[in-house]
Amino acid sequence: MKLLRVGTAGQERPALLDAEGTLRDLSGLVADIDGALLADGAALGRIRAAAGELPAVDGAGLRIGPPLARIGKIVCIGLNYHDHARETGAEPVIFFKAADTVVGPNDTVLVPRGSVKTDWEVELAVVIGRTARYLESAEEGLAHVAGYAVAHDVSEREFQIERGGTWDKGKNCETFNPLGPWLVTADEVADPQDLSLRLWVNGELKQDGTTAEQIFPVGEVVRYVSHFMTLHPGDVINTGTPAGVALGRPEPKPYLRAGDVVELEIAGLGRQRQEFNGA
Amino acid sequence: MKLLRVGTAGQERPALLDAEGTLRDLSGLVADIDGALLADGAALGRIRAAAGELPAVDGAGLRIGPPLARIGKIVCIGLNYHDHARETGAEPVIFFKAADTVVGPNDTVLVPRGSVKTDWEVELAVVIGRTARYLESAEEGLAHVAGYAVAHDVSEREFQIERGGTWDKGKNCETFNPLGPWLVTADEVADPQDLSLRLWVNGELKQDGTTAEQIFPVGEVVRYVSHFMTLHPGDVINTGTPAGVALGRPEPKPYLRAGDVVELEIAGLGRQRQEFNGA
Repeated sequence: MKLLRVGTAGQERPALLDAEGTLRDLSGLVADIDGALLADGAALGRIRAAAGELPAVDGAGLRIGPPLARIGKIVCIGLNYHDHARETGAEPVIFFKAADTVVGPNDTVLVPRGSVKTDWEVELAVVIGRTARYLESAEEGLAHVAGYAVAHDVSEREFQIERGGTWDKGKNCETFNPLGPWLVTADEVADPQDLSLRLWVNGELKQDGTTAEQIFPVGEVVRYVSHFMTLHPGDVINTGTPAGVALGRPEPKPYLRAGDVVELEIAGLGRQRQEFNGA
Repeated sequence: MKLLRVGTAGQERPALLDAEGTLRDLSGLVADIDGALLADGAALGRIRAAAGELPAVDGAGLRIGPPLARIGKIVCIGLNYHDHARETGAEPVIFFKAADTVVGPNDTVLVPRGSVKTDWEVELAVVIGRTARYLESAEEGLAHVAGYAVAHDVSEREFQIERGGTWDKGKNCETFNPLGPWLVTADEVADPQDLSLRLWVNGELKQDGTTAEQIFPVGEVVRYVSHFMTLHPGDVINTGTPAGVALGRPEPKPYLRAGDVVELEIAGLGRQRQEFNGA
């Protein structure tokens, strides 16, 4: 299923995009799309069973919000693609984005005040559906995934690298995590390691990768993270970005400025479009 | 005021510890103690006005939970004491703890599986009461603080330092952020830069510092952080720890094991006691 949330920011209603591309209202069936719903197999079954009879919604002009409410934490994996990681460690790099950085897939993204190195990163986001704690195998890891979505891990490279301390400083500016348009349930993603990811800036293709190039595949990432922290339903993991970001390009690096437009998509998971503006 | 939350984990009720040390039930007046309440001056005023008439509660045997519900994010400042920081940078180090690591001040703390370097850190926690975004002065920073609490920033040093990537890997194990017993409103803390902090392991004094030694004082920390991310009511900042942690001691360093008991206190903000156990 493709689950989404539509409406004004902060007042989104749950919806479903059916197999024919019709938007259907879920608000008569569930209060919202969140970790509690994703952990509730019976509720998901009721949505599945009722899908054909849900009232259709005219999507024209309707804002799409992030597809998940009440996100717990967002764990991010750094340097997870063979083509992007110049120095590959033996273990995944972990950093965080705060849940309050999440915006809808087509919302405006703000270039922070004083920023000269705002960068793009298309990523496969994994949404957790079951509490994961000290998992033993990648297969177990995959079994704890409720679904997938497109994430934009917007990054400020000066804040991240040149201002002391950890990467978090450049990853948590407001609006820095567009998510969506949909949460696609895991049963509809045949192989999470065979998804193409692409990102354009002002119409020019900048990133063109595939999750086949992930050093640590999704199931292994979930297993690994579960040994350092407990993952709860409604937590999100951003699984890293392929080559092609501004940071990796020759000087002068083409960092983002107010007025730029970034579009990104993952095959089967939908497309985002953000205008960048000043904070 | 000293605000707290008492009862079984996940089902705490809001309460107040009055000037005479009597515990009083707040649940008839407010649903819970969270960011929304802290941002609501009128509601805080109603609590203040009614304090003397609220029903007394027998605290004997009652568990104390964390004093804040629905914590947004926990921003942590590293190396912020003159006596603890061996290499002082020009800027504060920022890392994160997930809100789901928070437990009550006297709850059991779990030594992670495979851990041999679990360490202690007594810290002054700052609770945000107003949205803070690009603040211009330390005075403005202080004006966005709703209150203060004791935090234990439990840390796994191998995970933090030796396992690749950022500090977050050793800061987010389950139960790694005991908070409380109280949220003391800012009006009752005459000078946040004049608070003594102490921590004992199995009765032996290990940390004995004062916030006078903070390199970046509270107001400056809030101002600084607000330039990298937006702070919301109900967010918490752990402002760093003074000297005396296991990491800074000669070999063999006295890291924590199951069975150890850690006690910590900050003058005027109360005292915590945790038994450590296996995960």
